[in-house]
Amino acid sequence: MSTTTDKPITLYTAGTPNGHPVSVILEELKAINPAVDYNVVKIDISKNTQKEDWFIKMNPNGRIPVIVDHARNNFPVFETSAILLYLAQHYDKNHEFWFDAEKDPDNYSELLQWIFFAHGGVGPMQGQSNHFNRYAPEDIPYAKKRYLEETKRLYGVLEIRLKDRDYLAGSGRGKYTVADIKTVTWVRIHKFAGVEDLEAWPAVKAWVARCLERPAVQTGIQIP
Amino acid sequence: MSTTTDKPITLYTAGTPNGHPVSVILEELKAINPAVDYNVVKIDISKNTQKEDWFIKMNPNGRIPVIVDHARNNFPVFETSAILLYLAQHYDKNHEFWFDAEKDPDNYSELLQWIFFAHGGVGPMQGQSNHFNRYAPEDIPYAKKRYLEETKRLYGVLEIRLKDRDYLAGSGRGKYTVADIKTVTWVRIHKFAGVEDLEAWPAVKAWVARCLERPAVQTGIQIP
Repeated sequence: MSTTTDKPITLYTAGTPNGHPVSVILEELKAINPAVDYNVVKIDISKNTQKEDWFIKMNPNGRIPVIVDHARNNFPVFETSAILLYLAQHYDKNHEFWFDAEKDPDNYSELLQWIFFAHGGVGPMQGQSNHFNRYAPEDIPYAKKRYLEETKRLYGVLEIRLKDRDYLAGSGRGKYTVADIKTVTWVRIHKFAGVEDLEAWPAVKAWVARCLERPAVQTGIQIP
Repeated sequence: MSTTTDKPITLYTAGTPNGHPVSVILEELKAINPAVDYNVVKIDISKNTQKEDWFIKMNPNGRIPVIVDHARNNFPVFETSAILLYLAQHYDKNHEFWFDAEKDPDNYSELLQWIFFAHGGVGPMQGQSNHFNRYAPEDIPYAKKRYLEETKRLYGVLEIRLKDRDYLAGSGRGKYTVADIKTVTWVRIHKFAGVEDLEAWPAVKAWVARCLERPAVQTGIQIP
């Protein structure tokens, strides 16, 4: 597949909570700077397009999302959270959606702590709950319960963090950053993983609603 | 529990592949700068010490490792990979074990891509393989196979990356960085997860041996 280059960035993605954080940040960035525009190449993961040779050359893990930055020598970036931090560094010089590592190191570290929490916890564990509660060819109550309970426990961790805050990272009530983008795109689809509602975690529920009010989030989660 | 402050950093940890990356980087840093010293507080995870109130105040996720940096106003940091990047930023100014984000942005991004790959892939999935092949109270062949095969698939991704390289990130044959530290501390204990040997992935096998030759790795994986 050839890479279209009429826009500075090409995003290879699918309509999943791995892909959506990247389309959301790109919509956020485009809204404040129309020069940050991107092409979308929809990857049909049901056909394993992401396991084809041309894709493996960009990401040996064979998973969406991947971006290619034509404005920076066609540099490819994989792993959702690494893409978020890449786009922040190169296309959000005013730190609208992250913190300056040098000038604001503690808030920057908080952002990293929460993005890694989502990347290693919420994403993988909620994903396993999806699998055993939706897709697995066998009914395995032990695994269903294990991952549903772990997903709920992780929402409880978010509740502790958000109960006096608006967003995950930053001083005071926090600032909307890529850590929220990474996490909320998973939590909003809690039903899919077997968590019927967010009533047990009122601060999390309010935070999801707060994030979903943003036009860039509404647009980003419809891509591709 | 009071925090001892005779050394600049306190590390709360246990002898697991989540804790070891942090003790390894601290040993690496101490070897080049003896002023970077640390206290170890061993957390007995079998007694759920990490779920006690005093620990939850440092890390609402209730998991090891956590560091507290007494030299920076007792700033706490959780999530293994966030700690690695924090220690790199504040205590490895010469970029011995990472890359300068501003001066070396592409290598820095590669490091982030691989550390997120390990943090969201190798760690969680090998951890699930450990669980179903070692600890689960039920014998569930489907789950055993699922996570063992995913662990092997992820080793195959590392093999693609390492087949012409010495380390995961960096130009040419790469440079030993926190991405390797994060990943090798999992892969070295492959037997625990049900992967008998690394013969199917010769470049991975050589890379594990290469990393394990380092004195700081040998010391770090014995802590606490």
